[in-house]
Amino acid sequence: MIRKIIIALIACSAFASLATQYPITIAIHGGAGTIDKNKMTAAMQVKYKSKLKEAVDKGYAVMEKGGTSQQAVIAAIQVLEDSPLFNAGRGAVYTFEGEHELDASIMYGKTLNAGAVAGVKQVKSPIALAEQVMENSVHVLLSGQGAEEFAKRQGIELVENSYFDTKKRYESLLKAKKKIAEKLAKSKSIKAAYQQLDVKYKYGTVGAVALDQYGDLTAGTSTGGMTAKRFGRIGDSPIIGAGTYANNDSCAVSATGHGEYFIRYHVAADICARMQYQGISLQDAADTVINKVLVKAGGSGGIIAVDRQGNIAMPFNSSGMYRASRKQGESAVVKIFKE
Amino acid sequence: MIRKIIIALIACSAFASLATQYPITIAIHGGAGTIDKNKMTAAMQVKYKSKLKEAVDKGYAVMEKGGTSQQAVIAAIQVLEDSPLFNAGRGAVYTFEGEHELDASIMYGKTLNAGAVAGVKQVKSPIALAEQVMENSVHVLLSGQGAEEFAKRQGIELVENSYFDTKKRYESLLKAKKKIAEKLAKSKSIKAAYQQLDVKYKYGTVGAVALDQYGDLTAGTSTGGMTAKRFGRIGDSPIIGAGTYANNDSCAVSATGHGEYFIRYHVAADICARMQYQGISLQDAADTVINKVLVKAGGSGGIIAVDRQGNIAMPFNSSGMYRASRKQGESAVVKIFKE
Repeated sequence: MIRKIIIALIACSAFASLATQYPITIAIHGGAGTIDKNKMTAAMQVKYKSKLKEAVDKGYAVMEKGGTSQQAVIAAIQVLEDSPLFNAGRGAVYTFEGEHELDASIMYGKTLNAGAVAGVKQVKSPIALAEQVMENSVHVLLSGQGAEEFAKRQGIELVENSYFDTKKRYESLLKAKKKIAEKLAKSKSIKAAYQQLDVKYKYGTVGAVALDQYGDLTAGTSTGGMTAKRFGRIGDSPIIGAGTYANNDSCAVSATGHGEYFIRYHVAADICARMQYQGISLQDAADTVINKVLVKAGGSGGIIAVDRQGNIAMPFNSSGMYRASRKQGESAVVKIFKE
Repeated sequence: MIRKIIIALIACSAFASLATQYPITIAIHGGAGTIDKNKMTAAMQVKYKSKLKEAVDKGYAVMEKGGTSQQAVIAAIQVLEDSPLFNAGRGAVYTFEGEHELDASIMYGKTLNAGAVAGVKQVKSPIALAEQVMENSVHVLLSGQGAEEFAKRQGIELVENSYFDTKKRYESLLKAKKKIAEKLAKSKSIKAAYQQLDVKYKYGTVGAVALDQYGDLTAGTSTGGMTAKRFGRIGDSPIIGAGTYANNDSCAVSATGHGEYFIRYHVAADICARMQYQGISLQDAADTVINKVLVKAGGSGGIIAVDRQGNIAMPFNSSGMYRASRKQGESAVVKIFKE
């Protein structure tokens, strides 16, 4: 009799474990924009793809070992932050004044807790600081020197601002400033001078979204912002609802693109809202916002998203988006252009 | 024959004018929170109500003379910013360091254009600067010194930070710091020290929403933030989607309350999204978010909202919310407590 009960209990717990097991899933992006297929050498493509694969595999491995989607998102983003290839962390673009000001945010879909930082200059991993804000402060969004003072208290690694210097980004700044100066010589409108800048100066972000075996979603985004940005400009990346959103009732989204449009159309939260309130699929919600609403408004970029069933959506309305994804039991899929 | 055509044309244009005429409507708030009915003297209530009436009437008058909802929202908010009674502009609370850092945002529902500023110290009317960001910059959100540099270029009125000093708010800072220090003496957790602070230290905002005769919605919000705030904390007021949202397809919303919850639940945009995607009324959407979603999460505060039919919703889950509204052909209604 006791043996039968034990067998029943084991069977029952195995069933319960199966029933609550979600398919671990991760998707990442390294920015969207005018990635010119003809100008990008095969060697460069290999370089980008290899780093994207490393990041998505690292995040996946965290969850495979029982880690949470939050840990996976942090791990994947830090690989991209540490690489000079992407506009986040190490490869951050320059502000108009020749410095680097970084933004990041993270949101946990189980609790709707969130943390974000804007305009930090000395934090090696802005996504790690955003996580600290989420876990250990009563606030959601900290900015500037204040955010760095908080970073010091939390023992977050600080670096000199010059740590983020790269030759490639500096050349981009010089080109952007030249274009702005030329335009300003003809018209006094700073607005017009910035509007004519190619979207390649306005883009570049990294992000990750993940679903862990416990059924919890997380989204995170990190960026150096817009080349030659001025006036303490804050883009969509540290704005919960715009660049990042996660809710276990719908999905987790990380965005990349022309930030001002992503704020005005609160893109990340809107995709979640459409899914939840209209009862449509993740793919349909994401496609509608990126390829209809944003295209009509003139806002370019893309998003990565995952839902609780492990569905992935990665629409973008620009020529390319650095991206990778991995589903349970499968190997990583890495892409740059439309295919 | 010509006479008949002229009569037909006049009739037709009168009909078109009638058909496109929307009922001008405005609602404002001066903050929500623990407004203690027993501690508030009749004289104080008269003082608050009189200023709220002045603000709502001023905004209404702008639209009655043919002005837009955008002009009405600015006019109404500036009356509240100029009054020391409310935590915005003149009556802004103090930061932990004993300064004032102001935030504001505005959004125009016809174009979904938006502008916002965070952490400005010398701008007399933050809502006026937010409007300049919307109209004359390529960005949506500017912060700190950069935002002030932009203000100078746009000819926005600057004042010394001491312009915002008031005895009442300074006493609140001293009380809040004492409570924080007492808690920190027992535990090192800054998070816990701030969590125990009464909500009265976390509240106070002003805002306005309006519908003009052209059928266009605008929402705006302005605040001094949270008493004793630190680390460059940014609340929900300058966050498009959280503290402010406007879309002619749904509604215009301005929020006031514990900002961190309003960011995580992207309250303003969520009310618009529920209305648009679920096809429910403004009142139902607003009630659900404020009295169900936020109450369940533990987030207190309220919102004011108006839709394109001139419906007004003003739910709050705190003990009171300073508020006023006025509909076409009616006089102003001003309230503080639940009635």
